[in-house]
Amino acid sequence: MTPEDFKRSGHQLIDWIADYVENIERQRVTSEVQPGEVRAQLDEHPPASPDGFDAVMADTDRVIVPGLTHWQHPGFFAYFPANSSYPAILGDLLTAGLGVQGMSWVTGPACTEVETLMMDWMHELLGLPERFRSTSTTGSGVIHGSASEATLASILAARWRITNGSVNRDGDTSRLVAYATSQAHSSIEKGLRIAGIGTDRLRVVPHDESFAMQPAALAEMTATDRAAGLTPFWVCSAHGTTSSMAFDPTTEIAAIAQREGLWLHVDGAMCGIAALAPEYRWVNAGLEHADSYCTNPHKWMGINFDCDLFWTADRQALLGALSILPEYLRSQAAESGAAIDYRDWQVPLGRRFRSLKLWFHLRIDGADSVREMIREHVGLTQLLAEWVAADERFEIVAAHPLNLLCIAVRDGDAATDALIERANATGTVLFTRTVLDGRSVLRFSIGARATQERHVRSAWNLLQHLV
Amino acid sequence: MTPEDFKRSGHQLIDWIADYVENIERQRVTSEVQPGEVRAQLDEHPPASPDGFDAVMADTDRVIVPGLTHWQHPGFFAYFPANSSYPAILGDLLTAGLGVQGMSWVTGPACTEVETLMMDWMHELLGLPERFRSTSTTGSGVIHGSASEATLASILAARWRITNGSVNRDGDTSRLVAYATSQAHSSIEKGLRIAGIGTDRLRVVPHDESFAMQPAALAEMTATDRAAGLTPFWVCSAHGTTSSMAFDPTTEIAAIAQREGLWLHVDGAMCGIAALAPEYRWVNAGLEHADSYCTNPHKWMGINFDCDLFWTADRQALLGALSILPEYLRSQAAESGAAIDYRDWQVPLGRRFRSLKLWFHLRIDGADSVREMIREHVGLTQLLAEWVAADERFEIVAAHPLNLLCIAVRDGDAATDALIERANATGTVLFTRTVLDGRSVLRFSIGARATQERHVRSAWNLLQHLV
Repeated sequence: MTPEDFKRSGHQLIDWIADYVENIERQRVTSEVQPGEVRAQLDEHPPASPDGFDAVMADTDRVIVPGLTHWQHPGFFAYFPANSSYPAILGDLLTAGLGVQGMSWVTGPACTEVETLMMDWMHELLGLPERFRSTSTTGSGVIHGSASEATLASILAARWRITNGSVNRDGDTSRLVAYATSQAHSSIEKGLRIAGIGTDRLRVVPHDESFAMQPAALAEMTATDRAAGLTPFWVCSAHGTTSSMAFDPTTEIAAIAQREGLWLHVDGAMCGIAALAPEYRWVNAGLEHADSYCTNPHKWMGINFDCDLFWTADRQALLGALSILPEYLRSQAAESGAAIDYRDWQVPLGRRFRSLKLWFHLRIDGADSVREMIREHVGLTQLLAEWVAADERFEIVAAHPLNLLCIAVRDGDAATDALIERANATGTVLFTRTVLDGRSVLRFSIGARATQERHVRSAWNLLQHLV
Repeated sequence: MTPEDFKRSGHQLIDWIADYVENIERQRVTSEVQPGEVRAQLDEHPPASPDGFDAVMADTDRVIVPGLTHWQHPGFFAYFPANSSYPAILGDLLTAGLGVQGMSWVTGPACTEVETLMMDWMHELLGLPERFRSTSTTGSGVIHGSASEATLASILAARWRITNGSVNRDGDTSRLVAYATSQAHSSIEKGLRIAGIGTDRLRVVPHDESFAMQPAALAEMTATDRAAGLTPFWVCSAHGTTSSMAFDPTTEIAAIAQREGLWLHVDGAMCGIAALAPEYRWVNAGLEHADSYCTNPHKWMGINFDCDLFWTADRQALLGALSILPEYLRSQAAESGAAIDYRDWQVPLGRRFRSLKLWFHLRIDGADSVREMIREHVGLTQLLAEWVAADERFEIVAAHPLNLLCIAVRDGDAATDALIERANATGTVLFTRTVLDGRSVLRFSIGARATQERHVRSAWNLLQHLV
């Protein structure tokens, strides 16, 4: 592809993306393809000779787009938001165009420094405690690909701290015990497995009727484990669980964590971004006691995947767990202590210039645009809650302070399950199901940038019609 | 940003990227900034009101570009190639524009199926053994972010298999022992740490004078460990070590691995892509015995970071290690077994539609363009080797069958170190240093797409002048 071809094709693709985003409502939310049907429509073998940009885009229109679940669709109410914005798309394009590898400061100084700056900008915008700022004595932040990696990183840092680093050499995790509720994210179980701790030593702390952790139960469980000769080392407090967006009581959990020497990780992946708006800053409650925290601009801030912000108040533990220094990666800048080598803050060695999309978004659309979007989504959720509360066939089964409403059909689980299936089959909406205290629940998550009141109203009318 | 703004700014950015790529030679390879200087030139606080695309691009020109190490520069001979191509940049742009989350088949059917297809296309193009193909009985492939993640995934799968899955519950890794040479990648030490195995149980297998593993030593070490009541479980055979691009003898290692029940992971991250050209397909020697293999199109194939191809012949072990199924991620498609949920093939839950850049590259520029590039780079390396061999002040200290030449100054380590420093200080080239058997070495890695004979000749003349 010549530079001229690239320019011409690139302009076409930019226009194509704008058309896709602006007209996404004309698509079904979900695809009607069955497993294998996408592949069957594409060439089974690589082309012997190139067929060019136009041919690829024709296949994109013919096969790819009809074969997708459209996360940017205004009728997408499933899982969690994963909205993107025009400036973030351009930031990601610049990342691809520069082709820089930011594993160390010296391999891309601007890549490292803009990332630290963006972590501090976000720190300021979210109103996070001083201990997480890069200019603090012991803390700082890094962009990870996902909250799963943030969870794992916090487990690894905690494991290092509780063993004074000996785990790096002997791998002995045999006495370590971790704590979370059944509502906390699946990445905890996965992270503990990966870290060689095993799920036998994950204690499921009981939750109350609001699906929040019971601190008294945590205190009892850590005492029991300690009496049995085990070592409690890590607890996760969820600020917004995936199933119902419940908030664990971090301040009370922190008191126990501090007494027992637990690493306190707070997981605000799904809705911590709400703290951009002062009236929702309560989502940060207790963070001043946390050892680590993460939230995801790639969920509810218009930054396309992947962009998870991970802060720790104990960077020494994180670096102790993850730093490796072979000869071919040595540099004066890092050894002087003046520069950050982010490869030591994460599982992978390599890294993209991922902060550009945050920088573009904050400078072109600005934080106010995100605040407006968040307020709009929260407002729509509260409006929806009023409608649901007024229909006696339905029941709201969890608190809904932000943008997720958990709804059950009073007729029982079979009715709820059938309703989800029928609604999704229309192709105009997508809901996901969860189970709360043994009960089937329809999750109505409002977070696509394109979602307006008419979409929520129409989805609600559909549910009323189909129930 | 309105759709019209996006189109206008997007076109500008596309043109900017073409100009950056075409004129990259006008930049220094490396930046002259000191730690902290990039940040000091940018606003310390997020903007109170947005200042727009033009302002961000002005800062990109003023601060970002001069603050980078330019990995696409023809004088970039450091680390490893990380070259990108125009079609791959467009593929990445489409990924960002679609904003799809491909954690499960159902969350983006085309995202999953194109990825499997691209793994099979690459399988065919590289001439890999049948056992890794998605249509095989027990194997298949997935795109990871980096070879470090592939290494970790192989360790986790091996750990699961050797313990019949019990490690997921009890985390007991206390008897497991892993094997690699000192020349193998640092991600092995990191992966073993993360997996809770610890570096005390990483055995450094001696290498021969070509920096390749000595299989007899491996056999002895596994026997000793087994006699001590330990359980050998994993060995890495490097197809191209980072320091000197040495090749471990996989066929001989495989015989021991099979007898001893070790998982055999082959790491072809840096140069496995060479197998695209039939004359270099010897890089695959022994792969038919491997349990897993990885190579990186984001190094030497023109696919911008991140794109690591990871194949396993035992997907059951990989899935056993990494699959988790909470209620909110259940789907009929996956439970029927007809669809792949790639979240269970990796550490993170979330994933981008990352295969598009491979698809674009293979259909627009085609595999032949990569073959030509690889041949050109290998040819330049051999030409360089002739020049170096003819200058008695220098010594070639390792075999150089592909695109890396390891050079020492005969006057000794101080002279080699000083030469690297002086050459890099010119800003026209970048080399990295390594240590081979205690000796300082200048690594001359030829892999940027823009690198032509004149660049190699000029870099060599510079070294001759500065030595």
